[in-house]
Amino acid sequence: MEYSAINLKEKLDKFSEQWSPKIIAQMNDYHFKLVGFQSDFVWHSHLETDETFIVLDGEMSIDFPDGKVDLRAGEMFVVPKGVEHKPFAERECKVMLVEPAGTINTGDARGEMTAEDNVWI
Amino acid sequence: MEYSAINLKEKLDKFSEQWSPKIIAQMNDYHFKLVGFQSDFVWHSHLETDETFIVLDGEMSIDFPDGKVDLRAGEMFVVPKGVEHKPFAERECKVMLVEPAGTINTGDARGEMTAEDNVWI
Repeated sequence: MEYSAINLKEKLDKFSEQWSPKIIAQMNDYHFKLVGFQSDFVWHSHLETDETFIVLDGEMSIDFPDGKVDLRAGEMFVVPKGVEHKPFAERECKVMLVEPAGTINTGDARGEMTAEDNVWI
Repeated sequence: MEYSAINLKEKLDKFSEQWSPKIIAQMNDYHFKLVGFQSDFVWHSHLETDETFIVLDGEMSIDFPDGKVDLRAGEMFVVPKGVEHKPFAERECKVMLVEPAGTINTGDARGEMTAEDNVWI
């Protein structure tokens, strides 16, 4: 059978939209997604699940009501379920998200930044 | 509150044992683990779960009964549950694994390469 590696850079090069996660792999009922973004996202939380950020390129931060975490390429962070957070990046940043299939990017705060949740690339 | 990034390289620098995955983060009931290895692992499968390999440094391959996948830094692969596989690397390779907490490295093939399954670093 033909088995193929998933190359993260090749996948990132296939799209330029911001704040619009694209699925690249599935493990059980979880998705690995790539996303690029700059500027501020909306405050939101995911009531049913933790959410993993792995920074592939650039730098980003996540604001919490009571603190902040700074992340650069080669660093990761797991946002606990139910915790309000707001990702942001001064310059464009590329991130891999790991979370259950069907997780909505804006969580409990649907609005104009809500992306389709099932787009593979 | 104090929120801290998990730096993958700093975590990798903390141990040198081979084929002995160390947990660095938990997302719901899944673990992110780091492992370094060289040479051949044992043939095995995980009957209950898929298993994700993300190569951080170096190159590795995974043999299957009917094929093979080559992976280098920046590439990933999800081994489907129940599929026999044998990871190997000619030179030392550093990998992040993502799999359910409690997943045993040798799956259904316990033996001298079976590592403790709950070691955080």
